[in-house]
Amino acid sequence: MSDLPPDSAVTRDLILGGRVVLNQPKKGYRAGVDPVFLAAAVPARPGQSVLDLGCGVGAAALCLGARVPGLRLAGLEREPGYADLARQNAQENAQDFSIFEGDLAAMPAALRQMSFDHVLANPPYFRRDQSVRADHAAREAAMGEETPLAAWVAAAARRCKPRGTVTFVHRTERLPDLLSAFQACLGSLVVKPLIPRQGRESQLCLVQGRKEGRAAFRLAHGLVVHDGLRHERDGTDYTPDAANILGAAAALEM
Amino acid sequence: MSDLPPDSAVTRDLILGGRVVLNQPKKGYRAGVDPVFLAAAVPARPGQSVLDLGCGVGAAALCLGARVPGLRLAGLEREPGYADLARQNAQENAQDFSIFEGDLAAMPAALRQMSFDHVLANPPYFRRDQSVRADHAAREAAMGEETPLAAWVAAAARRCKPRGTVTFVHRTERLPDLLSAFQACLGSLVVKPLIPRQGRESQLCLVQGRKEGRAAFRLAHGLVVHDGLRHERDGTDYTPDAANILGAAAALEM
Repeated sequence: MSDLPPDSAVTRDLILGGRVVLNQPKKGYRAGVDPVFLAAAVPARPGQSVLDLGCGVGAAALCLGARVPGLRLAGLEREPGYADLARQNAQENAQDFSIFEGDLAAMPAALRQMSFDHVLANPPYFRRDQSVRADHAAREAAMGEETPLAAWVAAAARRCKPRGTVTFVHRTERLPDLLSAFQACLGSLVVKPLIPRQGRESQLCLVQGRKEGRAAFRLAHGLVVHDGLRHERDGTDYTPDAANILGAAAALEM
Repeated sequence: MSDLPPDSAVTRDLILGGRVVLNQPKKGYRAGVDPVFLAAAVPARPGQSVLDLGCGVGAAALCLGARVPGLRLAGLEREPGYADLARQNAQENAQDFSIFEGDLAAMPAALRQMSFDHVLANPPYFRRDQSVRADHAAREAAMGEETPLAAWVAAAARRCKPRGTVTFVHRTERLPDLLSAFQACLGSLVVKPLIPRQGRESQLCLVQGRKEGRAAFRLAHGLVVHDGLRHERDGTDYTPDAANILGAAAALEM
């Protein structure tokens, strides 16, 4: 894990109501609720194959595997330190989850020969030219946008089987770019906004497309995450819908 | 009005709570609530100039003029029959509203030399290749998509002054195309979904951009149009927000 900062102790966290054990660096990029919502939105059925692009320590893939039994999971991760933790997490969670190391712009040959029923991704959120550089190099790689969003979507679509789905979670302010990238290689697009709480605007959204899909674009109802008008106490004010997804491994309908 | 079908008697309707008189053909394309919401979303200030692209009989421009005093309004309309009615409506409503006849792909030279503080449009909703042809030729021209949406947006942006706004109302299922077209020539994009009633998905949305705007994209809260879960009685079940806009000429905040 030489690519992680020297002070990066690893924590062992439980997510998805204790269904997933997640070893992750104490500092740098840490999984929040975003990969959990992402995993909940993938309409995978038992026995299908799934690729998590830029999987980090494996939060999204492992949440999906905990909800849907019998999946064959794969992940691509560029940072060896995160990839090592993802392998450890796969083992601790006893899931069929293979980690490939490499960049999505130059995928390992073995991965380039595979295709998947579902591809998901939680790409870095901040554009390098519009944000202050993060403190740590590894956090920067996870949070800065070195690879254009369109390249993420194109790589996801290439690895996706016909009629399969591609699902991303990303900042709502990038929706025009996301839709443009999705529309270039996928159909039947759906956007599901995540609303922090009633009366606030969406900061994050889920975007899903189907390879060779021909249905019209849909803007789905927003999912309100927190109850009440203000933040009261950490983790205690989820709406019933959000609590079901985050704590009881419910699926998120797009 | 030789381009209107021979059976097109003209009706005289009151909209915007009686503030606007609208002469329009009994058959063919008739103004609904869409141009009223469109007009309500344009942040025009007294004394500014406004262009309504594809203005029809002038519903949107006249609603905007009824809400904001002292506007200089212009409209471009391809169908001479609608243009004639728009002129008659301008006169009956005593508004400073000049109608230009022509296609947006080949605008009259006089209009090409003008620029406006705000441009708005309610382009035809249905794509010719995906819908049954309308019965009447004039209705077809208003409802079919002969001119690509991107050409509408580009024409609007060209006629818009720096820091001015361009506002469209259109079907939500065309949002990917709309955002792509807006992003190509405008900034500070905002989408305001119109929700038919609580629990239903948005079918229409307002999209607004600012020329030379640099703010991040925003997905605004949806505006719920009707109260209750079912359609009860025509025109009697608007939500307070919708009723304020449609009946009391309130502005619609994006």
